[in-house]
Amino acid sequence: MKIALLGMGTVGTGVYEIINEEKGNYFANAQEKVNIKKVLVRDKTKKRKLDVSEDLLTDSFDEILEDQEIEAVIFAMGGMEPEYSYMKDAMRNKKHVITANKAVVSEYLDTLLKLAEENNVMFLFEASVGGGIPIITSLKETLKINRIDEIKGILNGTSNFILSKMSSEGRDFDDVLKEAQELGFAEADPSADVDGFDVSRKLAILSSLAFGCHIKDEDIYKRGIREVSKSDMEMFDNLGYVLKYLAHSKMDDGKYCATVEPVLLSSKNIMSNVNEEFNIVSIHGNIIGELQFYGKGAGKNATANAVVGDLLYIINNSERRDDIILDKTVENKKLDIFQGKYYLRVDIKNHEEFKKIIDMIDETSRVKKMMVEKSQIFVVTEELRAYTVNDLAQRIADMGNELFYARIVQ
Amino acid sequence: MKIALLGMGTVGTGVYEIINEEKGNYFANAQEKVNIKKVLVRDKTKKRKLDVSEDLLTDSFDEILEDQEIEAVIFAMGGMEPEYSYMKDAMRNKKHVITANKAVVSEYLDTLLKLAEENNVMFLFEASVGGGIPIITSLKETLKINRIDEIKGILNGTSNFILSKMSSEGRDFDDVLKEAQELGFAEADPSADVDGFDVSRKLAILSSLAFGCHIKDEDIYKRGIREVSKSDMEMFDNLGYVLKYLAHSKMDDGKYCATVEPVLLSSKNIMSNVNEEFNIVSIHGNIIGELQFYGKGAGKNATANAVVGDLLYIINNSERRDDIILDKTVENKKLDIFQGKYYLRVDIKNHEEFKKIIDMIDETSRVKKMMVEKSQIFVVTEELRAYTVNDLAQRIADMGNELFYARIVQ
Repeated sequence: MKIALLGMGTVGTGVYEIINEEKGNYFANAQEKVNIKKVLVRDKTKKRKLDVSEDLLTDSFDEILEDQEIEAVIFAMGGMEPEYSYMKDAMRNKKHVITANKAVVSEYLDTLLKLAEENNVMFLFEASVGGGIPIITSLKETLKINRIDEIKGILNGTSNFILSKMSSEGRDFDDVLKEAQELGFAEADPSADVDGFDVSRKLAILSSLAFGCHIKDEDIYKRGIREVSKSDMEMFDNLGYVLKYLAHSKMDDGKYCATVEPVLLSSKNIMSNVNEEFNIVSIHGNIIGELQFYGKGAGKNATANAVVGDLLYIINNSERRDDIILDKTVENKKLDIFQGKYYLRVDIKNHEEFKKIIDMIDETSRVKKMMVEKSQIFVVTEELRAYTVNDLAQRIADMGNELFYARIVQ
Repeated sequence: MKIALLGMGTVGTGVYEIINEEKGNYFANAQEKVNIKKVLVRDKTKKRKLDVSEDLLTDSFDEILEDQEIEAVIFAMGGMEPEYSYMKDAMRNKKHVITANKAVVSEYLDTLLKLAEENNVMFLFEASVGGGIPIITSLKETLKINRIDEIKGILNGTSNFILSKMSSEGRDFDDVLKEAQELGFAEADPSADVDGFDVSRKLAILSSLAFGCHIKDEDIYKRGIREVSKSDMEMFDNLGYVLKYLAHSKMDDGKYCATVEPVLLSSKNIMSNVNEEFNIVSIHGNIIGELQFYGKGAGKNATANAVVGDLLYIINNSERRDDIILDKTVENKKLDIFQGKYYLRVDIKNHEEFKKIIDMIDETSRVKKMMVEKSQIFVVTEELRAYTVNDLAQRIADMGNELFYARIVQ
């Protein structure tokens, strides 16, 4: 099979290496069947780490599109446009599409799946969620027999690195973020990682497949990790909890909630030991119960492995099938389905504020534990609905008090 | 597709329910394609929980064998014979075989795979390892691109239950075993679970696939968990370790080791939080790095889910492929590849014994930590080879001193 590769960044290079350099195992046997005929790059003259023959390089997507021999196109580019248009053009020209691009997949999944069906080609996107973890394939397989009603995941390495470091070294958010930026683990603008946009797209893709309807980034409630402090981390340690940035969606009787927010896990929870660049995804099926999948969530080789896995699927399956259909009618209940005990920390300046805050908390919830230290109140509440806590937090924030809160998931 | 089901025990009942009672999700759509035509049972007149039509029941395997309409046979029976003969007969009669029977698979994998190839039928055994965890499928997929050099797993619910309980409740082995037996979690003869034979068969199957050669139960070093005591458990807690009964195999340059033994994991290790009936399997590939898979290791629904998953694979794939070939030449180095720090506890009766034991340990290893309490010595050694420690332990045991030791895996 002749294919084209779009992009020669980290993932593109990894894909090229696995296919052409026999780093792999059984894939070497399929060598004769896979031939990268064209590589699309922005600048053909750019010096590259990898020695790619000049004949392969092109800066014209049309050249790939019009090449009848090319049966599949691998998208190893991260933007929204022209990637989305290119994907549609490729499928209209009867080429299979494989992509690692979570932005396009989460936003246009429904359209792209339909286009694949209309043109009798495959649209595969294993690498768009969880790097090397075979979560899309596993989710599809589980769905053949199960209804899935819950997804939980740690799906962002940068935020996980920051929280792990803050916890193990007793440091503040800004301090660790700065280090992560210097080490190249975090972007100059860290918003995608620490405010939930990256995770949200991944959760959107997983939830869409699991619940059978197109759930987008905009349907997901997001809360960042910027407010967590060193003193919170100390308190979590004392209470036996670990703070993780969790993607969580749940379906109940045709209604769902999907959130990305910091939550507290018991230190006995498997997910509490997932650190640094590793990701984990938990899915719950009505027959199989809970399944969890753990692996490297990013990086050249792991992500490229997922891309090449999709390519092998196309090579080995001449006919399309396992079609995903996003035709269910579901209602987004925002935060309404989630509830739990909550941890809440409020900074106070004087006794008057202390009394006022305590009164506000008392009106909302029975308090299970309370600690007061220096100028901070720490509270663990009884079971509360998520929207109740959000409302309380908003009212406290409106008074000018700094605070942090997190649902306790166990 | 018309199929036969052999056995109406726990797994057989679960399979019957998923196929016939629309408990599942997408599988309901495939209903018309799957029809259980015959169910083999020992005693047709036995009263069953499940209401199975009398017309379906048979006590004659020949009746199934001779039925040309039956295309696949599901083996939900646990013994070695007649199961092995029946599997061969079924494939010779051009019927696909799906089995949950780890005893037959581990002992005859090579023969059964070859027979499947000769007869152009499929031989699938997802349910034989790890219950509902899709580990066989995931291993095959990973192997298409990766060389796999290490497998680790917690694969036995009974021993895991006993160790969890001993640890959390500070109780002795015999005491917890007795409770597990009363609760029906452990057999009257617990040997398969606590001496490693059950786990060993599962590790044999996984290692065979991963390393490309037929590794059997007899190739695996096994050590049980009967010697671990309450005082060991207390010490592990103090040291920040958790004791788990680990299946572990490793390949290094054409040589492998495979063991089932109690090992110490850091409480920060994901596997240390795997409790009760849950299983976990870790595989390490040269490209993808470490992947871990977690789920219910036993039970009606989880295991039946794996069986029905195999059935769906047969229905959806008219052609055989993904053939596993066990043709590699590998050398069994027994314990030689494993090494690590070791925990060792020896019971002593007097000062003379104390001195003697300390001398023996000193000759073998530099000691990293030592504690003496009442009439027990507790030692954590520097890095040692597994066979060195086994030899030391044997010499101490030969002197009549009770002891327990475990490799520290981190």
